Amino acid sequence: MVSRMAVFVKPVVKRRGRRPAKAGDTREQILEAARELFSTKGYDATSMRAVALKAAVDPALVHHYFDEKSDLFAESIRVPVRPDRIVKQALEGPRDRLGENLVEAVLLALENERTRETLLGLIRTALGHDFAATLLRQFLVAEVFHRLAVALADEDDIEDGELRATLAASQIVGLILVRFGVRAEPLASADIEEIAARVGPVIRWHLLGYPQPDI
Amino acid sequence: MVSRMAVFVKPVVKRRGRRPAKAGDTREQILEAARELFSTKGYDATSMRAVALKAAVDPALVHHYFDEKSDLFAESIRVPVRPDRIVKQALEGPRDRLGENLVEAVLLALENERTRETLLGLIRTALGHDFAATLLRQFLVAEVFHRLAVALADEDDIEDGELRATLAASQIVGLILVRFGVRAEPLASADIEEIAARVGPVIRWHLLGYPQPDI
Repeated sequence: MVSRMAVFVKPVVKRRGRRPAKAGDTREQILEAARELFSTKGYDATSMRAVALKAAVDPALVHHYFDEKSDLFAESIRVPVRPDRIVKQALEGPRDRLGENLVEAVLLALENERTRETLLGLIRTALGHDFAATLLRQFLVAEVFHRLAVALADEDDIEDGELRATLAASQIVGLILVRFGVRAEPLASADIEEIAARVGPVIRWHLLGYPQPDI
Repeated sequence: MVSRMAVFVKPVVKRRGRRPAKAGDTREQILEAARELFSTKGYDATSMRAVALKAAVDPALVHHYFDEKSDLFAESIRVPVRPDRIVKQALEGPRDRLGENLVEAVLLALENERTRETLLGLIRTALGHDFAATLLRQFLVAEVFHRLAVALADEDDIEDGELRATLAASQIVGLILVRFGVRAEPLASADIEEIAARVGPVIRWHLLGYPQPDI
């Protein structure tokens, strides 16, 4: 039922008995179908329509509960932060603050201990299981890196944009690991503002090729 | 015997019988004592002398097998790459190539699949166990971050130097994770030279405060 996805999530407790299906059950039924399809077919090859079919519900019902595939995925693996939303929001702000805004948004989201622990657990899982790494990668490529590349890179050099996006991601992932995982001082206790001021230019450098707004 | 350190290393197979101790046994005896002390007292509070005492061997013998505490530690947890050595070597090269040289050395070391897998396993362990994270942190602070800070920072602002060192480390750790763990393209397949050219300036920015040699 939960198949290999079980490493990502706690097994769903099936309700027993013959009660008629309620809203909560339908939603959970959809999530369960999503978990199974994502974990066997991957992110890209799973459509919301296929999830509806698998869950034996009307496709409109899937869209009623989940706006987009990314939402369905995020909830199915209970991802504690939404990199796709953080990136989308940062892209709407001023370009010169793009790096600082991204860093601040990520660090603020991880002020919450539970969020942090869940995220570190997710990274640990992805490091230990090839299929978990693949799934996470597909999600990040489709919803984060490609979106960044399309928004920022030259149309004729999307691959360069994608390399830039993965490099920016590497800085942010490493920041999360060293600050919250290894907890190396003084980085672990440094103010978010100070970190943003130091790492913002790096993200800008990776994404746009220049470190300072005024160079 | 192996205590909590067991999560780091495969348990040592004890030889049975009454054979007289051989060189290999003594060395293993020292490593076993080191593992126990590191895992209970931490990196800083463990001296080579204490390891000798614990292993019931002459301190000179510990120095015969291991030059420094960092070597003893690295072997006791079977660390596949030596960040302390990589940093030491990079510091001996030209400052303007410091970032590029660090990135290249790390990526080259991880071309070896076994090295890579061991390192990813170590990171995974550190993410899951507080004491493992602590041990790794103490080692990195003492042998990598502090050394970098002392070599590069103003004497009167070692803390700034240490923050810089942890930020540089965060970029490198993230690079390892995204390239080898998540394996996000195009970063996963990019040439080492190209990555060094893009990430080198970031390391220089973190460590020295300027991205380009000629700015």
